[in-house]
Amino acid sequence: MSKVRVAGFSVSLDGISAGVEQSLSDPLGKRGTEIFQWYFHTQSFRSMHGQEGGSVGDIDDKFAHQAMDNFGSFILGRNMFGPVRGPWLDDSWKGWWGENPPYHAPTFVLTHYEREPLVMEGGTTFYFVTGGIEEALERAKKAAGERDIKIGGGVSTVRQYLKAGLIDSVHLVSVPVLLGQGELLFQGMDLHALGFSVTDYQSSEYATHLTLEKV
Amino acid sequence: MSKVRVAGFSVSLDGISAGVEQSLSDPLGKRGTEIFQWYFHTQSFRSMHGQEGGSVGDIDDKFAHQAMDNFGSFILGRNMFGPVRGPWLDDSWKGWWGENPPYHAPTFVLTHYEREPLVMEGGTTFYFVTGGIEEALERAKKAAGERDIKIGGGVSTVRQYLKAGLIDSVHLVSVPVLLGQGELLFQGMDLHALGFSVTDYQSSEYATHLTLEKV
Repeated sequence: MSKVRVAGFSVSLDGISAGVEQSLSDPLGKRGTEIFQWYFHTQSFRSMHGQEGGSVGDIDDKFAHQAMDNFGSFILGRNMFGPVRGPWLDDSWKGWWGENPPYHAPTFVLTHYEREPLVMEGGTTFYFVTGGIEEALERAKKAAGERDIKIGGGVSTVRQYLKAGLIDSVHLVSVPVLLGQGELLFQGMDLHALGFSVTDYQSSEYATHLTLEKV
Repeated sequence: MSKVRVAGFSVSLDGISAGVEQSLSDPLGKRGTEIFQWYFHTQSFRSMHGQEGGSVGDIDDKFAHQAMDNFGSFILGRNMFGPVRGPWLDDSWKGWWGENPPYHAPTFVLTHYEREPLVMEGGTTFYFVTGGIEEALERAKKAAGERDIKIGGGVSTVRQYLKAGLIDSVHLVSVPVLLGQGELLFQGMDLHALGFSVTDYQSSEYATHLTLEKV
């Protein structure tokens, strides 16, 4: 059965999943990289970005691998795709990831502004969806076939899908860092009432991995 | 040097440190006991409540022991002391803990309503402080001498002392549970701006222990 999953989603001890003031030089917002320290050292991350080495088969690498494995399509919020706000002035912005993005599958970008699909190298095509989260999910499900659909972020997109009851499984990474300011993941959201329980819990030296599922 | 510490303070994955609807039968609020599973199995907890057995020397027991060790005085919020609200109608309520409370030291209870000190067995005397958090801390410091002062809770009391910059060290226990509703520990509080960093991080099979200090 195809599932709708959030995976590899970091959150600070104080409940923050993105720093403030996202920009071209700070795609994760200020201090946002601090909640991804569990990820950067893994082979899964490094190989995805054309780098050698990295830890293999440890808890962090296992979850890093699962966080990009078996997805037939992806959904991203507009800010996850780039720092451009408002209408697309031209087609020059092609995402944060260069010519060969790490998705290698149809990737649906939520936006209020229409734009033609963007075919990238390596199997990623960005489709721009103006009809809202349900339309994006419907199209992503068709594209994914038997495989899973990943809600890739950012925080606002994940929160919208959670609140709408459209997510089956969430892999969170709780990182021992205080961000203090940024986008709050849990605020005003009762994940217990939405049916989620913590079904798996494992710690590495960098972070604690938690799997939330409806049971 | 005497320090002002919070210790053994549990918080759910979604940032909640007490359940809703505290009552005589639910001192920790609904589902509040779920965030203390790391504590109940330890020898430190069990011996404190006159029970035999329990885990010894593991991560949970080590922190459980530290959470009650070397304190010369304690400060508690009114709700941590009991379910009574408004004026003290009589002296019948003597805390949740029976005749011999686990403090064994002067214990200052924040309240808006005056009441005579209450001498219990085992060295605990409850003093009722109507002058606010700073007066309570001043009296607790005098009482503690060289030893530390523990801000014992509840959530509102800990938040007030944190925001006022009066706390030196916080031991939090992040528990892999979603409470969904209850008292939020971090809401509207920037612990990074208040000078705190995570200086220690250790996980057991029950929970993750984090020490926050000003460095």
